[in-house]
Amino acid sequence: MAFPAETEGFQVDGPGNPPEFHKRSFKLKPVGDYDVDIKIDACGVCGSDVHTVTGGWGKQNFPLCVGHEIVGHAVRVGPKVTLVKQGQRVGVGAQVYSCGDCKQCREDNETYCQVNLINTYGSEWPGTGIISQGGLASHIRAHEYWVFPIPDALSTKTVAPMLCAGLTAYSPLVRHGAGKGKKVGIVGIGGIGHFGIMFAKALGAETWAISRSRAKEAEARKLGADGFIATAEGGWETAHLCTFDLIVNCANSSSGFDLAKYLSLMDVHGRWISVGLPEEEGQVIKAQNLVSNGVLIGASHLGSRRETLDMLKLAADNGLEGWVEELKLGQDGLQEAISRMKKGDVRYRFTMTGYDEIFGQ
Amino acid sequence: MAFPAETEGFQVDGPGNPPEFHKRSFKLKPVGDYDVDIKIDACGVCGSDVHTVTGGWGKQNFPLCVGHEIVGHAVRVGPKVTLVKQGQRVGVGAQVYSCGDCKQCREDNETYCQVNLINTYGSEWPGTGIISQGGLASHIRAHEYWVFPIPDALSTKTVAPMLCAGLTAYSPLVRHGAGKGKKVGIVGIGGIGHFGIMFAKALGAETWAISRSRAKEAEARKLGADGFIATAEGGWETAHLCTFDLIVNCANSSSGFDLAKYLSLMDVHGRWISVGLPEEEGQVIKAQNLVSNGVLIGASHLGSRRETLDMLKLAADNGLEGWVEELKLGQDGLQEAISRMKKGDVRYRFTMTGYDEIFGQ
Repeated sequence: MAFPAETEGFQVDGPGNPPEFHKRSFKLKPVGDYDVDIKIDACGVCGSDVHTVTGGWGKQNFPLCVGHEIVGHAVRVGPKVTLVKQGQRVGVGAQVYSCGDCKQCREDNETYCQVNLINTYGSEWPGTGIISQGGLASHIRAHEYWVFPIPDALSTKTVAPMLCAGLTAYSPLVRHGAGKGKKVGIVGIGGIGHFGIMFAKALGAETWAISRSRAKEAEARKLGADGFIATAEGGWETAHLCTFDLIVNCANSSSGFDLAKYLSLMDVHGRWISVGLPEEEGQVIKAQNLVSNGVLIGASHLGSRRETLDMLKLAADNGLEGWVEELKLGQDGLQEAISRMKKGDVRYRFTMTGYDEIFGQ
Repeated sequence: MAFPAETEGFQVDGPGNPPEFHKRSFKLKPVGDYDVDIKIDACGVCGSDVHTVTGGWGKQNFPLCVGHEIVGHAVRVGPKVTLVKQGQRVGVGAQVYSCGDCKQCREDNETYCQVNLINTYGSEWPGTGIISQGGLASHIRAHEYWVFPIPDALSTKTVAPMLCAGLTAYSPLVRHGAGKGKKVGIVGIGGIGHFGIMFAKALGAETWAISRSRAKEAEARKLGADGFIATAEGGWETAHLCTFDLIVNCANSSSGFDLAKYLSLMDVHGRWISVGLPEEEGQVIKAQNLVSNGVLIGASHLGSRRETLDMLKLAADNGLEGWVEELKLGQDGLQEAISRMKKGDVRYRFTMTGYDEIFGQ
């Protein structure tokens, strides 16, 4: 089966609030022996997409087709592909290439590759002038290493957001020791955080949801939270001082955030790991805030192929699925997704579907 | 032998630059069954002393006798003391009490005790109104747990600064994995940093000294550094991007510090651990600066009794000693120490000696 040079999808030409999405054709990467072409069935709408198309992260490689929580079927596989079978249901997340050869890649840290890291959208395929394009499109092409078979137990629309949001929560949990006997907090109950609660609980940790108000308490407990902390309540931190082993901060904004208070929750050498990339200017950290418990502050970027497969198995084994609201692909659905995401009006992720109606079978 | 109620030492009544030191008597803590009275022979002058007596850290419990790098001899031991023998040469560092019973204390994290942490000087002994007083004095009284036998191989004047500066460098090195096969950096070659270089090397790590200029390069290599980085040189970071497993930041000031550039040196999930408590307002950290390598930023406070004993053994086994300049205890010597420390004019620590001349045999 011949690999085409182009596909069709929805691109934005620059930031807008919400932006205009234009349906048009654009180039795929030049085909390689390990590449897989995927006909897309669904794609989650990630906070990164919102930051990108509304201009919050500044200059991007427009025109751009965003979307990196992709589920579809492998329709063509290159001659050397062994990890994916033609016809198989597969997913693609937020990264589609790394060098595969550097220290980071060899140690399952391919999402930290310093040599050649290609994001699912917005990166140039080296030497081609072609900018990678995401999942609001008919097809995507990716190296088999970045294409993940989806277990039968998981539904297309609910597994889609696991491929970025889910993995973003899962990787720091397993890397920083979430498990039996550990007290783990998830700050920010949204697209990433709702997966964080599910996964922390499934990994065996005592799991606390940490949110501003109690508005999401019932849902957090349904997701698996053992406890709930509302930071709008005075003295919220006192019962938990120096007790958390790990907190994954999924908040998408840092404004009005009293970081020192959160850090006081951490046990000695506990880990405070942020996975959001807020648009604000960052926070002032004094060594004095860190020294009373030796807390470690870090960030985490996606997760490895190995972690992706482990996460999908954990979800399949435990019947975990993302809480999603379906929207139909197209200008209307996309604008609704972006503007409601901006307002936090989603519990907890949009998945765009209806691809066949737009692009044909 | 009766335990006295008081001892004599040099106190400051408030911040000065340099401050006045007044020789006078002050109260010791009420004696307990596990207490040891130490006749002091020498005391290192720590950056903390300078911050305290010059007002850099703000309000303190004046009048105050500073000094927490103490070596002397046990002259009286309480009836339940088993860890120290009368007449033994011993040291006391920057902490003299913790509850001993909380989770932190039970896990060798007594320097992070949240219940009852008494610093060697400036803390109130609970319920007594008595403020703990440091080592610029004839005697000090401490619970045996905080009194450390000094190996014979180590000299009094060179081991004194190990009890705070040395331990401050040693603890984060061992807690964060310095050893064979690891690339470790020490930022700031001073009282703490010069021990950091020695210990990192002795622990088997590939050890790099990181300083502004090359002025201290020869000495750093003599201390054990395998390599030297001068951050005043353009492009200093490029050869080391994403390669360090651990950097212990011993710098005592954060002004003019391009933290993002330093963090780019760290390998994936490498640790950037600060042990200084600069007087400045802290630094802005954006999640974006942390996400490209998942670096962990932390701080470290002193080290445990177990680590103190291990450090002293490592030093004795490897013939390591602090590089010290002796000054005679008294108003002149103390003022010289403080004003020269302020200017960074010491390589690399002052030890106050001549106690017998001041206080008698």
